[in-house]
Amino acid sequence: MEQEFGNVLFDYARQARIGLPEAIFSESKPHHSLAALLERFSTGDPPILFTRLRQEILDSLPPGVASAYNYDPLSRTAWAATLPRRAKGSVAIISGGTSDAPVAAEAARTLEYLGIRHTLMEDCGVAALWRLTERLQELNSHDAVIVVAGMEGALACITGGLCPKPVLAVPTSVGYGVAGGGRAALAGMLSCCAPGISVVNIDNGYGAACAAARIINLT
Amino acid sequence: MEQEFGNVLFDYARQARIGLPEAIFSESKPHHSLAALLERFSTGDPPILFTRLRQEILDSLPPGVASAYNYDPLSRTAWAATLPRRAKGSVAIISGGTSDAPVAAEAARTLEYLGIRHTLMEDCGVAALWRLTERLQELNSHDAVIVVAGMEGALACITGGLCPKPVLAVPTSVGYGVAGGGRAALAGMLSCCAPGISVVNIDNGYGAACAAARIINLT
Amino acid sequence: MEQEFGNVLFDYARQARIGLPEAIFSESKPHHSLAALLERFSTGDPPILFTRLRQEILDSLPPGVASAYNYDPLSRTAWAATLPRRAKGSVAIISGGTSDAPVAAEAARTLEYLGIRHTLMEDCGVAALWRLTERLQELNSHDAVIVVAGMEGALACITGGLCPKPVLAVPTSVGYGVAGGGRAALAGMLSCCAPGISVVNIDNGYGAACAAARIINLT
Amino acid sequence: MEQEFGNVLFDYARQARIGLPEAIFSESKPHHSLAALLERFSTGDPPILFTRLRQEILDSLPPGVASAYNYDPLSRTAWAATLPRRAKGSVAIISGGTSDAPVAAEAARTLEYLGIRHTLMEDCGVAALWRLTERLQELNSHDAVIVVAGMEGALACITGGLCPKPVLAVPTSVGYGVAGGGRAALAGMLSCCAPGISVVNIDNGYGAACAAARIINLT
Amino acid sequence: MEQEFGNVLFDYARQARIGLPEAIFSESKPHHSLAALLERFSTGDPPILFTRLRQEILDSLPPGVASAYNYDPLSRTAWAATLPRRAKGSVAIISGGTSDAPVAAEAARTLEYLGIRHTLMEDCGVAALWRLTERLQELNSHDAVIVVAGMEGALACITGGLCPKPVLAVPTSVGYGVAGGGRAALAGMLSCCAPGISVVNIDNGYGAACAAARIINLT
Amino acid sequence: MEQEFGNVLFDYARQARIGLPEAIFSESKPHHSLAALLERFSTGDPPILFTRLRQEILDSLPPGVASAYNYDPLSRTAWAATLPRRAKGSVAIISGGTSDAPVAAEAARTLEYLGIRHTLMEDCGVAALWRLTERLQELNSHDAVIVVAGMEGALACITGGLCPKPVLAVPTSVGYGVAGGGRAALAGMLSCCAPGISVVNIDNGYGAACAAARIINLT
Amino acid sequence: MEQEFGNVLFDYARQARIGLPEAIFSESKPHHSLAALLERFSTGDPPILFTRLRQEILDSLPPGVASAYNYDPLSRTAWAATLPRRAKGSVAIISGGTSDAPVAAEAARTLEYLGIRHTLMEDCGVAALWRLTERLQELNSHDAVIVVAGMEGALACITGGLCPKPVLAVPTSVGYGVAGGGRAALAGMLSCCAPGISVVNIDNGYGAACAAARIINLT
Amino acid sequence: MEQEFGNVLFDYARQARIGLPEAIFSESKPHHSLAALLERFSTGDPPILFTRLRQEILDSLPPGVASAYNYDPLSRTAWAATLPRRAKGSVAIISGGTSDAPVAAEAARTLEYLGIRHTLMEDCGVAALWRLTERLQELNSHDAVIVVAGMEGALACITGGLCPKPVLAVPTSVGYGVAGGGRAALAGMLSCCAPGISVVNIDNGYGAACAAARIINLT
Repeated sequence: MEQEFGNVLFDYARQARIGLPEAIFSESKPHHSLAALLERFSTGDPPILFTRLRQEILDSLPPGVASAYNYDPLSRTAWAATLPRRAKGSVAIISGGTSDAPVAAEAARTLEYLGIRHTLMEDCGVAALWRLTERLQELNSHDAVIVVAGMEGALACITGGLCPKPVLAVPTSVGYGVAGGGRAALAGMLSCCAPGISVVNIDNGYGAACAAARIINLT
Repeated sequence: MEQEFGNVLFDYARQARIGLPEAIFSESKPHHSLAALLERFSTGDPPILFTRLRQEILDSLPPGVASAYNYDPLSRTAWAATLPRRAKGSVAIISGGTSDAPVAAEAARTLEYLGIRHTLMEDCGVAALWRLTERLQELNSHDAVIVVAGMEGALACITGGLCPKPVLAVPTSVGYGVAGGGRAALAGMLSCCAPGISVVNIDNGYGAACAAARIINLT
Repeated sequence: MEQEFGNVLFDYARQARIGLPEAIFSESKPHHSLAALLERFSTGDPPILFTRLRQEILDSLPPGVASAYNYDPLSRTAWAATLPRRAKGSVAIISGGTSDAPVAAEAARTLEYLGIRHTLMEDCGVAALWRLTERLQELNSHDAVIVVAGMEGALACITGGLCPKPVLAVPTSVGYGVAGGGRAALAGMLSCCAPGISVVNIDNGYGAACAAARIINLT
Repeated sequence: MEQEFGNVLFDYARQARIGLPEAIFSESKPHHSLAALLERFSTGDPPILFTRLRQEILDSLPPGVASAYNYDPLSRTAWAATLPRRAKGSVAIISGGTSDAPVAAEAARTLEYLGIRHTLMEDCGVAALWRLTERLQELNSHDAVIVVAGMEGALACITGGLCPKPVLAVPTSVGYGVAGGGRAALAGMLSCCAPGISVVNIDNGYGAACAAARIINLT
Repeated sequence: MEQEFGNVLFDYARQARIGLPEAIFSESKPHHSLAALLERFSTGDPPILFTRLRQEILDSLPPGVASAYNYDPLSRTAWAATLPRRAKGSVAIISGGTSDAPVAAEAARTLEYLGIRHTLMEDCGVAALWRLTERLQELNSHDAVIVVAGMEGALACITGGLCPKPVLAVPTSVGYGVAGGGRAALAGMLSCCAPGISVVNIDNGYGAACAAARIINLT
Repeated sequence: MEQEFGNVLFDYARQARIGLPEAIFSESKPHHSLAALLERFSTGDPPILFTRLRQEILDSLPPGVASAYNYDPLSRTAWAATLPRRAKGSVAIISGGTSDAPVAAEAARTLEYLGIRHTLMEDCGVAALWRLTERLQELNSHDAVIVVAGMEGALACITGGLCPKPVLAVPTSVGYGVAGGGRAALAGMLSCCAPGISVVNIDNGYGAACAAARIINLT
Repeated sequence: MEQEFGNVLFDYARQARIGLPEAIFSESKPHHSLAALLERFSTGDPPILFTRLRQEILDSLPPGVASAYNYDPLSRTAWAATLPRRAKGSVAIISGGTSDAPVAAEAARTLEYLGIRHTLMEDCGVAALWRLTERLQELNSHDAVIVVAGMEGALACITGGLCPKPVLAVPTSVGYGVAGGGRAALAGMLSCCAPGISVVNIDNGYGAACAAARIINLT
Repeated sequence: MEQEFGNVLFDYARQARIGLPEAIFSESKPHHSLAALLERFSTGDPPILFTRLRQEILDSLPPGVASAYNYDPLSRTAWAATLPRRAKGSVAIISGGTSDAPVAAEAARTLEYLGIRHTLMEDCGVAALWRLTERLQELNSHDAVIVVAGMEGALACITGGLCPKPVLAVPTSVGYGVAGGGRAALAGMLSCCAPGISVVNIDNGYGAACAAARIINLT
């Protein structure tokens, strides 16, 4: 069930085992390895999600390879094929500000790749709460909520106090000083006084989408 | 929908709003406040969950009050009445070692209070992996998995790579040196290379159970 | 303008210079030094505020000395005389939960000592936002707002987004795990996305009251 | 009261609610979003403050747009229109050294944008205290003092011990080794033994000016 | 036994004393110093290992010098001559993912330089455990095991629970958020619940190989 | 191969698998659990090592149980039976000062339990280097060296530069200020400029002895 | 030149070598070891300084032993004999507040033990600068200055800007929140913008006195 | 005694007050300010030391200005005139490796600027101790010793145990992993078990030289 490709062993059985196909975190891989992987999976069979993929890598490939991919520069995600659409389940993604957009987009694109319906509600920062409260009914119509926020990360706590659905919080590295690198948002979300919020690593929109997919798989 | 008791305003509407009734975190509250609250809620109406409640507080109350409570010294939880049993949904709690027992018990007792079926699988530390792999089928029969582990916290990652269900990781403060206070386990769980694990604060068994309840509420 | 007492030089001119009389931080001072200081200032002339003073110190003094003091065990503050009441200016103190009560009380008692009118609004945690929003008009009738909160500290950000008055945030050391010692609340308050919030050290209710007094002195 | 622009919802009501108009933190926003926002607000109606805006963004705009803005490269702030001048109230800004100039300038420019009179006193580092003490009378003639300092941040403590007015401390990221990123100055200012100093995030000149504006609004 | 070269005193006696010849950590040395050192040791007598050497340095040298070196760009190591092959002893190097390849390669190249047989097993991350368990017998045929892993570093713990040989763990700086710079992997490896794992500094493949060489020297 | 005892599953196969029998870390286990375990294993079959066991636990047991154990209060270790003496291999343990004695003793007792010969050389702190250099020949006659040191931990680096054998460094929590909790010693040992030192967690004398045993098993 | 006593090797040659006799840091040594050492050195030959020695240890000794020692409970120092008085050189010790007294006393007692003249100036906190400036001439008459301060530690910077003599800064662990454990004072003193200040570990009054003694030895 | 230049007030009286003339830390100042300052002080009257000055700044100046300066690219220091040579006193600077050379050079150049005799002994790392011990007599002939070391910083402790003169330790930011940014060296030096070592900020060769100058001024 496992096949070798260059030095990389692909875990094609992962989807059967945990319901999530393999993805390739591209940030720390050398250019030539990524180029080879992108060429190999440009047929879309099996489907593979590339995350943290810089535009330059794709631009350096033969035109036929690059054009096989659906690439989104904001989220830096690419695929040649997505999974089948699921009939059931949907996810809401809310974010604090436009600076959080790349992480919110990574979550949204991962859900799209996984075939899960989702809605993106941006600019719901806690300094303007009514944007969240006005859309609460819409929010509650989804099966899970991903909250993407930097700075002090309070948006996750507010959401957790208003919404009964599973809430997955993603701290972002937006911020400076004590908020630098996302540490204040991470600490705030873990310390949240609303019960039942869970948290993923800083900027990990992909991870939050996978956690949501595990929940959607139950419905 | 809100009533005053002493200086504390109870949020009886919380259950309607987010599906989770109010709980009282007892650790940092003064003795006389806790005594008053325990007396007030000894009728079990409305039901209230006390967490991090030390035995001494209960022992100092009039016998009629103390005996009204179902108290568990390991998890330090108490209630006078639980919520109705739910027909659907169940949660598995796995833990790394006997030192993690108080946190695993807090999660288990919170689920019991919330009326949710659950199973506790202890002593599944990563140094003895087959204990986990042998029980994988049983694990996968539940709707959500809570993983409680201290030290390096790797149990959550292993579980996430083997089990397709939502995995909620609880780092515990068990450990010394760089593991002191649970920081190594927290960092390890957030950095986990298995996709879709989410994490709650250190020792927060209550929070993990609430996160699981949000998921069970969907089924 | 300065007088010696034991090894301590009192700065009686401070009030003239910065509008705030000297206070004695009692936490790290040895018992015999505190006993001597409490005896010296039991006449109430000049007025001195003792902060972080444990009950046992007062109980060990001759009855005439102890009874000269107005002592509050929650805030651990004591004085033999207060400053004159000020005609103008008032301060609102809002806090997140009953666990924050000692710090909120230290702020309230310091304002009382300084002769400044104030109101205490407790239990306004972000998990139950309407408690804050319902009292917004009352809040805005004051000249400055002190927000006392532990855990993730989001109450300061919410208040800063709703209220135009100077907002002084006090993180409290209430919490465990990543919130331990107040670090998450401190980081959250400093990173706050509502503009113009300023912050004092963890548990520093006294400092927030002094900052409010500097503002009230302007009115 | 709220209008949509691209993906950004502007909070035009903020000025009515908290006395401070909306500002745009430009550091983490993509070039094309900033270009669109700058074009939209080049009429100066409503007035908007851009902070942390790099010269290159403005230089890349059509000449008519760029020339509509009053841009200051030291503070990296821009506006097409300021708020009306206020008749009452003034703020002193003191800084430790020329390396702190960008942050001091951000505070000064924000006050200018808000229509508040202010004076900038630079190079008052604690290694040359008389520069501060000689100008103490002038300092005390203002309604609030913003202290901008890096390294050990002691200037805020010295000022707080000499001046009765509200003191807002801004740690700067100037420094190396343990002072790197402003952490030493932040810790020093929060730990300050002069009573009633409050602190904003590292390099947050904008935030200090907003906190001062909340105070000036009272006068 | 010691000879001077430029400002650098070489410790040629080190090999006699501790069984390991001197190496040059090139990362923080200026270009001209490295150029001179590379020229001096291009004869291969005595053999010297250069670590963290960037390609550009070699490219800037006279062709005769550069061509004298065996350079590997992945590990950034170079030598003009290796030590004699040892008849006994071998080391297994296992790594978590392709992102850990540069550090695993530094360990492998150092062993090659020291004349020690070794095998590299890549892509054994804990999310796909069977890759490790299937090769356990092969792993156990070596005298020492070097485990190279980033993220949560759990691979070292798993290996330590399955393999009786000395296990040397190398955390890598691969990761983001709380895993940034290798801190989560380092903490996880030090906290490991399998007994008898020891750890070297983050990304220190060279150090792990030297520690393995000290063990191989015993056989 | 596995047997249940109370809630604890013992891993009797561990010795066959990794050459190290199971040990019980007693620090965070409740009194009643430890009492039951001590009673169960008082026959010495199978042999079990208890670490971090406080004297009070043993004192509270029935005399017949307590007297079955060989207990050492300095290292807080206990066993009812040791493993067979090994014919080959020996370990030197050197420590910096008498304050490091409990950790050095834990290492020594673990080796005694494992049947491995060893020598303890105390008080070799770097402020008096000749104590180490005078005994260098003796040190080098062993197969592995465990270095136990607190404060700045430099003893490990000095030893690594003088001795060719595997060096296992144990930082101790002895120290105050920046050395508090062993962090300075840990960082110093990991950063050590002598090649091939490896490190275990703070105060982990047991772990260092197990790492040494893995090496001795090779000889 | 070295003699054995129990397990402790005394370094009687240290005084010849570095001009400072050996001292015994008592904090982490077990009671029975300290008792034996105190008995051994009660003759005063050779002189030994005990630091961080708790009163209880001395109280538990035979009366003849305890009475041989000059013990000071504030600094927790003891000796049976001091070194000869030195004709030349003197040291000023200035401290910020009475909470710093134990550390200032440790410095003063160490100087007394070493036979060096010194003056103690307490309560010179930066909130009341004139106490320092009024005594500047006296301060400058000494050969070295030890500055003992907690909280933000600014006193060292102020002193360094006013006084030309060697300035040795001792951060103290007095403080709470971000100042907790002395970290803010340590960072502030290391970041100090006055040139030529050097720093010792937190609460290390003994170390500062030794550093001053090295300087006095030159005069 | 003070004169204005642009926005910078020079403290020409500093030399009279503390024996050290003013220096300009160039790292965080904008290009145009530095250019103006360099032009102003190119006459060498008064003498000014520029530290952390990049070559590019000088290269961009008019030839007459640049050539007026004595610039050293390794230490990044420049002056147009030095202070008079002092007849008495000398300083030894020892460093651990060639990577520490820029910091050692900053110390050496500052001493040269201050007119103080000094010797530089490089490459005395603790992995090759005899380089230090062989030159001990020479070392002890100086009046003060500056020790510059990165990694674990143990060189300062070794020196402090062998040399009776004032020892000023400078941690350098050389290193990676836990040694990154100089934190391990700083912690090690502050925790040093040899008595009487004092420490300056990371990479602060200038500060160590100023501290040495304060000592030399006494002789």
